[in-house]
Parts: sequence; structure tokens; C-alpha cells
Amino acid sequence: MLLISSKPGHEQVESDLRRNLDGRGRLLQSFAMTAGRRGFLVDGVDDRLDRLAALPSVAAARLVTAPYSLVKREERPAGSTVAFGPSQIGGRDFVLLAGPCGVESRGQLDEVADAALRAGAVGLRGGAFKPRTSPYLFQGLGLEGLRLLAEVRERTGLPVVTEVMTPEDVDLVAEHADMLQIGSRNVQNFRLLEAVGSIDRPVLLKRGMMSTLDEYLAAAEYIYMRGNEKVVLCERGIRGFEPRLRNTLDLAGVALLKRLTHLPVLVDPSHGTGLSELVPDLARAALAVGADGVLIEVHPRPEVALSDGRQSLTPAALEELARSLAPLARALGRDLARLPGRQAEASV
Amino acid sequence: MLLISSKPGHEQVESDLRRNLDGRGRLLQSFAMTAGRRGFLVDGVDDRLDRLAALPSVAAARLVTAPYSLVKREERPAGSTVAFGPSQIGGRDFVLLAGPCGVESRGQLDEVADAALRAGAVGLRGGAFKPRTSPYLFQGLGLEGLRLLAEVRERTGLPVVTEVMTPEDVDLVAEHADMLQIGSRNVQNFRLLEAVGSIDRPVLLKRGMMSTLDEYLAAAEYIYMRGNEKVVLCERGIRGFEPRLRNTLDLAGVALLKRLTHLPVLVDPSHGTGLSELVPDLARAALAVGADGVLIEVHPRPEVALSDGRQSLTPAALEELARSLAPLARALGRDLARLPGRQAEASV
Amino acid sequence: MLLISSKPGHEQVESDLRRNLDGRGRLLQSFAMTAGRRGFLVDGVDDRLDRLAALPSVAAARLVTAPYSLVKREERPAGSTVAFGPSQIGGRDFVLLAGPCGVESRGQLDEVADAALRAGAVGLRGGAFKPRTSPYLFQGLGLEGLRLLAEVRERTGLPVVTEVMTPEDVDLVAEHADMLQIGSRNVQNFRLLEAVGSIDRPVLLKRGMMSTLDEYLAAAEYIYMRGNEKVVLCERGIRGFEPRLRNTLDLAGVALLKRLTHLPVLVDPSHGTGLSELVPDLARAALAVGADGVLIEVHPRPEVALSDGRQSLTPAALEELARSLAPLARALGRDLARLPGRQAEASV
Amino acid sequence: MLLISSKPGHEQVESDLRRNLDGRGRLLQSFAMTAGRRGFLVDGVDDRLDRLAALPSVAAARLVTAPYSLVKREERPAGSTVAFGPSQIGGRDFVLLAGPCGVESRGQLDEVADAALRAGAVGLRGGAFKPRTSPYLFQGLGLEGLRLLAEVRERTGLPVVTEVMTPEDVDLVAEHADMLQIGSRNVQNFRLLEAVGSIDRPVLLKRGMMSTLDEYLAAAEYIYMRGNEKVVLCERGIRGFEPRLRNTLDLAGVALLKRLTHLPVLVDPSHGTGLSELVPDLARAALAVGADGVLIEVHPRPEVALSDGRQSLTPAALEELARSLAPLARALGRDLARLPGRQAEASV
Repeated sequence: MLLISSKPGHEQVESDLRRNLDGRGRLLQSFAMTAGRRGFLVDGVDDRLDRLAALPSVAAARLVTAPYSLVKREERPAGSTVAFGPSQIGGRDFVLLAGPCGVESRGQLDEVADAALRAGAVGLRGGAFKPRTSPYLFQGLGLEGLRLLAEVRERTGLPVVTEVMTPEDVDLVAEHADMLQIGSRNVQNFRLLEAVGSIDRPVLLKRGMMSTLDEYLAAAEYIYMRGNEKVVLCERGIRGFEPRLRNTLDLAGVALLKRLTHLPVLVDPSHGTGLSELVPDLARAALAVGADGVLIEVHPRPEVALSDGRQSLTPAALEELARSLAPLARALGRDLARLPGRQAEASV
Repeated sequence: MLLISSKPGHEQVESDLRRNLDGRGRLLQSFAMTAGRRGFLVDGVDDRLDRLAALPSVAAARLVTAPYSLVKREERPAGSTVAFGPSQIGGRDFVLLAGPCGVESRGQLDEVADAALRAGAVGLRGGAFKPRTSPYLFQGLGLEGLRLLAEVRERTGLPVVTEVMTPEDVDLVAEHADMLQIGSRNVQNFRLLEAVGSIDRPVLLKRGMMSTLDEYLAAAEYIYMRGNEKVVLCERGIRGFEPRLRNTLDLAGVALLKRLTHLPVLVDPSHGTGLSELVPDLARAALAVGADGVLIEVHPRPEVALSDGRQSLTPAALEELARSLAPLARALGRDLARLPGRQAEASV
Repeated sequence: MLLISSKPGHEQVESDLRRNLDGRGRLLQSFAMTAGRRGFLVDGVDDRLDRLAALPSVAAARLVTAPYSLVKREERPAGSTVAFGPSQIGGRDFVLLAGPCGVESRGQLDEVADAALRAGAVGLRGGAFKPRTSPYLFQGLGLEGLRLLAEVRERTGLPVVTEVMTPEDVDLVAEHADMLQIGSRNVQNFRLLEAVGSIDRPVLLKRGMMSTLDEYLAAAEYIYMRGNEKVVLCERGIRGFEPRLRNTLDLAGVALLKRLTHLPVLVDPSHGTGLSELVPDLARAALAVGADGVLIEVHPRPEVALSDGRQSLTPAALEELARSLAPLARALGRDLARLPGRQAEASV
Repeated sequence: MLLISSKPGHEQVESDLRRNLDGRGRLLQSFAMTAGRRGFLVDGVDDRLDRLAALPSVAAARLVTAPYSLVKREERPAGSTVAFGPSQIGGRDFVLLAGPCGVESRGQLDEVADAALRAGAVGLRGGAFKPRTSPYLFQGLGLEGLRLLAEVRERTGLPVVTEVMTPEDVDLVAEHADMLQIGSRNVQNFRLLEAVGSIDRPVLLKRGMMSTLDEYLAAAEYIYMRGNEKVVLCERGIRGFEPRLRNTLDLAGVALLKRLTHLPVLVDPSHGTGLSELVPDLARAALAVGADGVLIEVHPRPEVALSDGRQSLTPAALEELARSLAPLARALGRDLARLPGRQAEASV
């Protein structure tokens, strides 16, 4: 099967293609891509790859196979990196992203952002649109939450990642955030994957709580094939049978993902365990297992958080965790990523 | 916590509410409901239920609690029924819905619909929009598939259920189909649940492969609280560790759902097992365990199906299955539902 | 690989074998079998099957492959039956076995046995040796429990099945019981499987809560290959993620087992669900799905049971269940098994 | 509930007890303990703890509750250590145990033991009795394997841990090995737990693939309550749904175990993942998460191993892993345990 992307402005690519298929092959799908391009999936003419690639309206063509091709490690053996604000995710440096589960108020967000800065985090997480199991639980501040995140980014320089729950909100969230998160419940919300696949903004795709690794990578491919190559994966725990733990954090899955795909892989030990006292140990294990960073939930007063307080670190606990990560990273031949101009503080 | 639905046209309900809260309580959320009404979630004034309910702009008010209230069995101890074409789902009669996994062509659909009629099915299932793990697999015929389903309904009288994958398609699918299916991957796609919650069309909500029963009922509540009470549940297998089976069909979950909720519960033994040879046994077990019906995948030539052929019955196998269900239903004090005027055929 | 069984009394089979291997092949294992025979696993000489089988000291020889061969359905396409007291398990008739989780006293056992008789059960279950998660919970009456079971069998004619937990107790339990149960925690206690494999007494082998079907059948093969062909399987729920259910009863696994093996397959809906109110529905589903019988926990006063009260039926509920099974069995072309001379009672 | 242990030689403790219960309370169980003592579980007289403890025939008495009491962290907040050869498991130093899955020959064992020494391992693992899913797979060398292990211990000074599968083999294995392993399939083989509980020899109790943490600790309590306090736990992967991994290594479970119990906790990343290429990453993660050591499978030529070759490291890979563990341990404020006199080699 062929994946062909047209050059932007070349509207006639479809007719060009059809003419060159002369009755063989079948155009299965066409779809919007980033940068004004369009993509075309064609079946049955794999042997014409070169000829079709040479069409003037065609930007690129290549063979693809189910369940996924473009995100495979073999495509980029050295691994790919994704820029998030001034930092790179996926390179030598291990990134610490921190923030509250849900944005609750400017005060809460400021307090957490300052703690994140002190700890040496390079990004701020926080939910404005909160997917909640029950319709009767706090659903996030919505647009107001997005605005607060953008304001705090202005103040602190911390780039922001926040969740988008439905295709029609993609533009709105992309206006306010530096990276769009797809939550674990939406890992196979294919229309949403397609929507974030055709914009030019990093995407943090969380693993579903029952995703096999192949299903997960196929979900990433939905985004990647549309031209948005800025995809970051995140293991956040799979569903298991242990009543004492919210999820089962699959660190072997992380080690295997790093071998199967070139995409960066983060770990979320907060959702991964559901217990704040386990978060530091698991964050260190994530670093040791080869992850590219961690996503840590922090709340000034976890006991009154509107969501997920049980798994949130206090600001002080976050700083303590960060202090323990630096020597560990060095022992592994890596370093902690730092925001420019903030090298010194937390690593003392 | 209160759920209040305003009368249509009553735009002033929000200000009425605020006036009557006089500083106590908090308006958490307001949302569109069916029939032009709006809903309001209010926190902290449970003791004013009667007073708020008496406001002229308010149609009804009641206490609700997380994770779900309205769909609980206690609300309707006798169980609720949902009309699907001329039949009722959820009453004394057991319904058989059948059809292909994906709509592939008019010929395929006609062949399967005729088999469904012969078997005594009271509805036709078939996917026009197909969620697929890989972006490189057949994704359904889309709008063309919806049209074929509508045409075949015209010809046969079989009401049609088909999947909707994203909020923006809800109106389009509702135009063509008698019941909208939410697939298991979207069971916690909350924006989609909200979208089908505010239209007047039956919804078949499939259980997610990782849903606990409480999570599943909370997802149903998302739909139901918006005024669409025509919700039908469907167990379709949860994820397990057995390599020989696609899923683990949770029939005890069905028996328990019937005790926890008043909503009708169907069973999909095709996805539930992934193996066509097991489908008849599990369909009979679904009837015996107390389900309200089954959803069976049928394909004229399973070996060439574009999706899920391994789990599809042939038309002949469907008819044989239907013949075995009738005496079993009678032994259980029930009957098979029939389309009007088609009583005699399959039960001979 | 060859499995060879010697004739009893022929002690020289090993030297016969070695002579006939003339340097080729390898004797991997030799082990005790029923009826004084011995078994030999030989590798690398599959082509000498006939020659070795013809040795005077050899009773039978055949090719076997991992993970299991002898219990495969192909070996006995019509299915095998196992005699349990005067009844057959695995034939046309569906068997009802009932009894308390643990034997607590003669009074309790008498009361339950009488209820079992009234319900038309053909066997009495009850634990004398109780495997318990915690060392501080009631572990059963031990030998005293065995004696009570034997006494009640004398009085009622109900054959008895009870658990054996360790090889050294096999003879003792076999003295008192008609069928030996291997509990789910011991499904891969291979020394215990070997011990019950070389005696002449029916074995009820419960599926482990995390057994794949192949692992389960390989465990049955451990027994069967030693000459004890009286093996009955029993699905009792596998471990899942649902907090409301003790286990996930895998009825599709039962339907598939019936296709993979010729051994009879029972279902235990009491352990399978952990909730007495679900037991009747699941027992009926077990019949509908093609199981050969059910194992039901009954206690005169479930609320004071020393173990598993939450999942035990009262005697009245057992009788009501039995009344519903009979017409269902007939609708499926089967019947309920009855003890000789007790045909009439429960089916009225 | 009271747990009372008698002094050795005081045979009259049972009558002493009965006299002091004067009709109240109930003697539930009595059992053999280490050092010739006996244990007694008594119900209903918790208020007589002091009086019973003061009996001259009584060594100690304490309250216990299901599912477990003695192994709880609160009992020994600083954690307990278990001597294994000259090393301590559970203290500041992280232990590396290595060896083949199954003992195959003296040559294989020598080669692996030398590699283990070079890598700085402080113990040799290797199966003489091998539990295998299928009866037709290599079951280990048995007694011959035990002898080889003992010989290699003589030569190298490496203490040996090997599996015992059934109570009747406990004495034999204890004669040859320094630590007895209970495999994951036997984690609830209670008679076996009882048997190793009353001898004076360290026990490595592997977590079952379906054990909740509470079930696992209750299994450890079975051993501990009999007087054998030398219990070491080992996480080795639980059963999950991922087809690419043999098991799901539960490192969060390790972190939580360290909080729930004072017993040392090892990790087996070889069984935990089933893939040798993941073993080093997961071994490092085990160190980072707070485990007390790792158990690594090594084979001179993994591709011809009689069992589990796919997950075995080569000797060279083991040494490379060991070299990476030392700086990591130091970054965590710990060190690698070394055999006396062998400090220098591997840590260079």
C-alpha cells in the first residue's frame, strides 16, 4: 500500500494519480495533511512507487503496511526529538514536566508553576478540559483554564501541555497550549487523532489503559501519517487486577517501545500508580529504564484537590524528587533538561 | 447535587437559579438537552430541591450523585424498554439483530438483510464508519454506506443501527439510521456521549474493553442525563489474557448489569469471542443469562470479508442459530421478538 | 516424542528400551502409572514407534507433543465420559453437584445433602481441607471432614467430591471420596497432578484463575498421561479487573474447551461470580453454552458460613434453580442427570 | 486471634492452654515450628494475651489478624535482612544473583558460575527441579542437578538458590542448597509453604502471576508464622494482555511491597519480561525503584538452552549489566554487594 502526499496548492494530484493508475490499483482514502498537503492511500500498485513519486504534483510516496510503518524505529534508528518550548524531548536530556491534574485557579497554578521552576521542570501540565468518569464530577474550567495556563506561561516561560478532548476544540487548545495532550480514554478516538495529525503542534499521546503496544503505535501512526511528526508517547499505567494500585505502570513496555519506535516516550507515574508516596520511586525507575522524561502531578494542597489529590506530590516533594533525579541521570550518562538560564538552581 | 431541566424557551432559568441560590451553592455546569431544554448542575443546595423545582422556568429537579443516578435499577424497577423500529428492546421478547461488520456493497448488504429476515431478526447492523486499529485498514464506505443502509431498510423494513465516531457526524448518522452505535473504543469519548445525549434517537452504547461496570454505567448516565433516555447497553467482551480468544465475553457482567440498571442489555458474541464457531453457543448463553438480545455479525462469504471475517456467521449459520433460540426462549418464559407480519417463518 | 507404557509386572522394559534405542534417542523420564504400569518418555526415535510398540514388555506406544496430546478432542471426537457414583459426567445429561464450600458439621452437611437430593443433584461437594489465602482463616475440618462426607454419602447415596491439597494426602482423600478435586491454586502443582494421575479415581481439575486454556489442558495431560483418564475439567472464573465480581466467569472458554478436548467440562458459578444472586443466571448460561454440569455452593444459613457465604445459595434457592434447569435442558435436547430411583421429584 | 509458640520440649503446652482457656476460646490449629517449637492458633481469648504468654511452657504469644500480621512493615520498621551465604539480602547493598534457568550440565554451570563471579554476583541460581507447563518438556536434572549445584558452590564460594516443588523434597533440597525457591506457580501451595516454614533455611518466595499484593504477603505469612523468618520476596512479572511480553513486570508493586512489609524484595527481570534485550533496562529500573536485588538468567549459549533461552543473558551481557549497576547504586546512596575478597573486579 502506498502513502502519497501532494504538494500544497497542487489540487490536481488526485486526477494525476488516477490517470497513472490506469485501471490498476485503487484510491482508498484521501485526507488533509499539515502544511496544506493532502495524503492518498493507494492499494495494488506498490510496484509503481517510483513512477508515482516522480509526478510533479507529488511531494513524496512510500510503502506502508498495517498496523504501522512511519513510527517504526527502523525509520529513524537514532530516535527523533520533539521541541517543546525551548527544550527537546527525546534527546540525551531527561525532561521533567509537572503541574496540577486540573487547573483550578490562578493562585493554584502560580503556586505549582513556581514549584515546577524551582524543581527544574521544563514544562507545565494542567487540565482545562477534564475527562471524568462520572458526569457529576468537576469537568475542568474549560476556556478559562486555557487562559490561565497561557498567562502563567507568559509569566514563567514554562511551555504548557493540556488535554484536548474532541476535534472541534483542537484549534482552540492549540491557540493556548504548546503541546496538545490526547488522554488515555481517547487513544483510539480516531477522528481526534486525525484532527491533531493535520496541525503543526506537538502532541502528547497517552497510552490507553488497555492498549497493546501495537495498538498504541498504530494510534500514533494515525497522527504521524498526516504530517504531524511531533508525537510524544506517554506510558501512564495499564489496567490490572491489583486493588491497591490505580493502574499497573508498565516500565517494560517503555523499554520495549524505545526499541519499536523512534518517538520519544515519557512516563506518568502519578496516574501510573495513583499513590503519591510511590511517585518518586517510579519516576526514578522511569529514568533508569530509559524513558525520555516524566510527567508529575503536583498540587499545593493535595488533600483539597478537585481531582486526583491522592496521587499528587506537594511542591516540596517535587523538589526533593528533582534533586534525586540529577545524580541518577549522570550515572546513566544523561542529564536533566533545564530551561535556558536556569541551570544552576535545582541540581545543587 | 441537583439536575434541573428548564422548559424549552426559558432562557431566564439561569438568572432565576442564581437569584434563588443567594450566594449559597454553585452552578457547576449547564448543557443542552433534548427537546430544546437545558440542564444545570448545582452544588451545595440539596436542601432547596423543592424550592428550586417550583420555579416557573424549571421543569424538573432531582438529586443526583456520582458516579451515576438516573440509570440505576431503583429508578425503574420494572426495567425500561427502548423502541427500535416496530420492536421493543428490553421487554419480554429477546431481540436478534444481525448484519455485516462493515457495509461493503449493496449486494452484500441485500444478501445479509435477506438472511436476517429469514432468521427472524428485527434489526440490521452494519458499519459505515469503521474504527480500525490501523490507519491502513478499510475504514468503511462512510456516507455511501449510510445510504446503502437506508435503502435496504426501505426495502426490507428492518430498522438499522450503525456506528457514529465523532460529534460532528451525529446529525448525519441520525438522518440515516434508527439507532446510533457508540463503539467500545469511544465508551468514554465524553463529547460524543454528550452529543448523542441531546438528540432524540436510540443509542446503542457498547461496553469498553476495559470498562468496569460502574464506569460503563457512568458513561450511559452522560447520555441519559441530557434527556435521551433511549439508551441500550451491549456487552461485547473485555480484554483478557487468553491468546485463543479475541476478548473475554463477560456474561456475569450482563447478569449484574441487569440488577444495577434499568436499561436494556444486549450481547455481541461475535466481537465477544472473535471465533464464529463459538458464536451460537454464546448467543444461547446470553439468552439464558438474561440478556435482552444479541447482535450477530453475518457475512455472505466470511472468508473474503473486509473486516472481522473470522467472527462472522454465514447466512445459513444465522438461521440455524435463530431456530435454536426460539425453544430456549420459551423454556425461559420469554419469546423471540418478530417484525410485524413475520411471526411464522423462523420459529418453525 | 514417544510415550511408552509398560505392562505391569514387566520390570525389564527399561532395559528392553535401551537395547532397542542402540545409541539413538534418549530416555527422558520414567514414571509410575495406574495399574502398576510405568511410562517412559523417549526423544529422538519417533520413527521407531512400531518397533518399540511391538516389544513384549510394552503395553502401548504413541507420539506425543507439547503442550498436550492425549486430551485433545481429536483423540475422542465423541467426547469422553467419567463415572461419578452411578452417574456419568460428560454425556447427554447435565449434572448438578451441590454442597457447602467447607464441611463445618454433621448437621450442616446433612441439611445441605438433603437439599441437594431434593433438588436432584447427583453429587455432593464439600471441602475438608480448605486452601485459604490467609493462614489465620478456617482451614477446614481435615480428616474429620472427610469422615463426615463419607457418612453422609452412606446415608444419602450421593457420591462425594472433595479437595486434596498435597501428594501425601492423596491416598487418604481417595479412601473417603468418590472424586478428588484439585483446586485452582494447585492447577500447576505438578507433583500433585502426578500423584492423582497414577491412582484410579476420578479427578476434578479446576482451572487456575490465570490459566490460559493451553496451560489448563497441559495440566490435565499431566494427570491423563499417567493412566488416570477420569479427568473432569471445571471453569471457576478467571481473574479480571472488575471490583464488583470475585472473578470473571469465562463461558466462552467453556465452549472452546469443549472443542479443544474430549474431557467433560463443568462450571462453578459460585466461585465464578462470588455473588449468590448471580449464580442461577450463570448456571443456566453454563447449561446453554454446552457445559456438562455445574458445581453449586449451598449453605443452610449463608450469612454464618465459615467460608464463602456471600456466594452460597440457600437450600430453597438451589431447588428453585434446579427446577429451572430441567426445561432448559430439554429445549437444548438434553436432560438433567438423576440418581437412580429419584427421577420424579425435582423436575415437577 | 492469638498465635502462641511453645518452647521446644514442652509437650504439655496444649493441656496448659486448654486449662487456661476454661471453656472460653477455641484452639483452632496447632502446627510444627522451627527449633522444635509448636504453634497454636487460639480464637476468642485475645484479652488473655498476657496471662497465656506467661505460662512456663509458652515461648511467645501475640495477636494476629488475617490476612497477615508478622510480615507487616510496622513489625520491623527498619526492614529485615536475610543472610545468604556471606551476604545479606535486604540491607544497604544491592545483590546480584545469576545463573541458568535450568541446570543442564557441569560444563554449563561452571561457565555460568565463572561469569557470575566475574560480574560480581553474590549467588548462583539454577533449577534442578523445573516446573514446566507441559509434561513433555525438560523437567530438570533432579537430584543430579542438586549435586552439580553443590559442587560448583564448593568450587566458587557462590551460595546456591534452587527451586523445591513439593513438601517431600524439602529436606533433600535443603541439604544441597543455601536458599530454597518457591516458584510462582506454587505461591499458594500451602502445604509447601508450611513445609519450608518449619525448617531453618532461607526461602525465596516468588510472587504468583496472579497474586495480589495482599495474597502474596499472606503466603509469606504462612512461612513466617512457623518460625522461619528468612523469607525473601521476588517480583517476577504478573500476567497481562500484551502479546509481545511474557509477563508484566510490576515495579510499582515492588515499591509498594517495600512499604507494606519488612521482608527483602528482589526482582526477576528475566521472567518478568521474557526478552533478554529488555533485562538490563529493567534490572536498572529495579535498582532505582528500591528493590534489594535482582535475579538474572544467564546461559553460555542462550539459543540452545533447554528452557527459557529467549530471556537469558550471555555471560558478556551479564558483566556489562553489572558494570552499569555499580554507579547507579552509588547515585542512589547504595552499593553493590560483593563476595568477601572480590571487591575490586567488576566495579571498575
